[in-house]
Amino acid sequence: MKRNNIYLDHAATTPCDKRVVKKMLPYFDDSFGNPSGIYKISREAKTAMDQARNVIARFLGCTTDEIIFTNGGTESDNMAILGFARKCKKGHIITSKIEHSAVLNSCRQLEKEGFDITYLPVDKNGLISAKQVGEALKPETILVSIMYANNEIGTIEPIEEIAKTIKKYRTSRKSLNPLFHTDACQATQYLEMKVEKLGVDMLTFNGSKIYGPKGIGVLFVKNGVKIDPILFGGEQEKGIRPGTENVPAIVGLGEAVRLIDKKSGLKEHELRDSMIEKLLKIENSELNGDRAKRLPNNINIAFYGIEGESAILYLDEVGIACSAGSACLSKTLEPSHVILALGKGREAAHSSLRFTIGRNTSREDIEYTAEKIADTVERLREMSAVNKSKVKR
Amino acid sequence: MKRNNIYLDHAATTPCDKRVVKKMLPYFDDSFGNPSGIYKISREAKTAMDQARNVIARFLGCTTDEIIFTNGGTESDNMAILGFARKCKKGHIITSKIEHSAVLNSCRQLEKEGFDITYLPVDKNGLISAKQVGEALKPETILVSIMYANNEIGTIEPIEEIAKTIKKYRTSRKSLNPLFHTDACQATQYLEMKVEKLGVDMLTFNGSKIYGPKGIGVLFVKNGVKIDPILFGGEQEKGIRPGTENVPAIVGLGEAVRLIDKKSGLKEHELRDSMIEKLLKIENSELNGDRAKRLPNNINIAFYGIEGESAILYLDEVGIACSAGSACLSKTLEPSHVILALGKGREAAHSSLRFTIGRNTSREDIEYTAEKIADTVERLREMSAVNKSKVKR
Repeated sequence: MKRNNIYLDHAATTPCDKRVVKKMLPYFDDSFGNPSGIYKISREAKTAMDQARNVIARFLGCTTDEIIFTNGGTESDNMAILGFARKCKKGHIITSKIEHSAVLNSCRQLEKEGFDITYLPVDKNGLISAKQVGEALKPETILVSIMYANNEIGTIEPIEEIAKTIKKYRTSRKSLNPLFHTDACQATQYLEMKVEKLGVDMLTFNGSKIYGPKGIGVLFVKNGVKIDPILFGGEQEKGIRPGTENVPAIVGLGEAVRLIDKKSGLKEHELRDSMIEKLLKIENSELNGDRAKRLPNNINIAFYGIEGESAILYLDEVGIACSAGSACLSKTLEPSHVILALGKGREAAHSSLRFTIGRNTSREDIEYTAEKIADTVERLREMSAVNKSKVKR
Repeated sequence: MKRNNIYLDHAATTPCDKRVVKKMLPYFDDSFGNPSGIYKISREAKTAMDQARNVIARFLGCTTDEIIFTNGGTESDNMAILGFARKCKKGHIITSKIEHSAVLNSCRQLEKEGFDITYLPVDKNGLISAKQVGEALKPETILVSIMYANNEIGTIEPIEEIAKTIKKYRTSRKSLNPLFHTDACQATQYLEMKVEKLGVDMLTFNGSKIYGPKGIGVLFVKNGVKIDPILFGGEQEKGIRPGTENVPAIVGLGEAVRLIDKKSGLKEHELRDSMIEKLLKIENSELNGDRAKRLPNNINIAFYGIEGESAILYLDEVGIACSAGSACLSKTLEPSHVILALGKGREAAHSSLRFTIGRNTSREDIEYTAEKIADTVERLREMSAVNKSKVKR
């Protein structure tokens, strides 16, 4: 039996929900006005945008003026990190070694601009502790940016505890800063997202990971926090983020957020556990990332002796879509910085596969996939053994 | 007769063509893959993106690797100006006083970063001459950014001549730079867009002004020209512009470009002339911008003694959508910097109305609109006279 189109790369991007597309459609060619206009067709667009903003504010438990619409997760991360740091002009920033490249490369840019950056290591399961953050804080620290859940290995970081540690440092008056930003792109669908409960000052999420449209993101910026714009132009989004608002995408994002049903994570959780169990039966395989503090849809396993890229192509042939790591880095051919940060070495990085389950994944999909993975791994290891013996001759 | 929904603000944004929407739809929830993936559904997305890039490259007469997809006109302008200037680290930039705020505010930001900027004045019709640019060039000049056609008054600037002047300066070996960037967002549909003919090194255009989707833009960067990224993250778009590619919007932009029919400008040209003629019969009215070197769809007229904003609301009541100037600046309540640059003073700026015709505008629309404008202007002037006499009493 060849099953087609089993999509297990939801961490790379989700399909856009049909209900989201339907909701967006009228804003393409009917209520298409530029929301900055003052006539009817613009007011309609503006109203739709306001409604989406309301839905998102309720979802985050914040006020509508704390939400800035951006072009996506990358821009939101850049705006939080570059925008706040450049406002401060100088200082120290704490982040981790396993952040998304949008955070890591923003920090690297700031190093060039004279900022001091601490890249915290993680433990062998990919976890950062609040204690580590506490120890890294210093009077010059202006910002901490730690991701909520990792995009490659699904590890959930202790955001609330980190926030408490930072707050404690702040109230001890050692420094008026630092602020706390988290990239929550992978967490949005499954985890607590009330910003007050989390204790964050800035938070990033986007549409393309939550069954919403691509090209749209949010940066939550707590009232009172001032950031510099990173793009310059019109007065949209409180003068912080210029450019004609992408109304269809904003409306779509609002609908995608409205459709988030945290309970759906329970089903994915079960399927994930079942798949992990099946895959770890393959010999010489090892789970990457914490077993318990893990997104309900993430499976990332090193199958030693195989080449991840080849496995992806084999699995693609039998209708299964998965990845070797972050989609954003797939062109670099570099081994995953996340797997390397676990201390597992390049072989683990090169032989790891990521499967990320979605809303529509079924038990049958998982069973079929587990079977095909076992076949693929066996085949690739055999070929590799043959090659090695050939080389020896 | 009350005609509904006569949309005459196409310079603010166009509706998205139904054919464009149709072309985009499969990429929302069918071929929705992240184009960085290597499996089938990602390759489909990648292929569609490549096809769109091909269409756009043919349109501009450039190679596909000279095209960078961005989030829109504002980001493209920022990338060209900030990205190139920051690469150069220091230098002199020439722009004009009537640029879009994305260019002006990028230049203002660069002033803060230590760059020297010349804001060229325009003549009373909104024109910049190549001679002016030539006189402003100096050995430290790294970049000239002059818009192709103005978004408020529709004036078409002599891009080819300016390019020649710059090239001459370059070959005289007074300097290896300067490069030439143009914001062509308003020109895309109507004017020559072959970059070689124009002689530009960088060029901006976007989807939302050409019946394409919002949230998508292009920056043409000539081979050999190096710019710094302004956003940091993944390796998309040759490592210059990070973030998951917005495939549906890219596909839509390709289709919008494919559908451009420069002949449609002829019809708009006729309607424009007919409307200008009718409106200038209203006493105390004056055309803003050059009469001849003008986009075929732009009408911008000062009706002295009225308040533009009130007129827009009156016209909205009778189903006509128009604007007082740039949509991106409508929130500032500042008088238009473009009208002020013509030397006409604040009264002209406050009493000007912009009407921008589109593909679907009919002769009846224009006739109805001209009639309603005459009524509105008369009514507003009467009210103003009554108010003034009340004040006098």
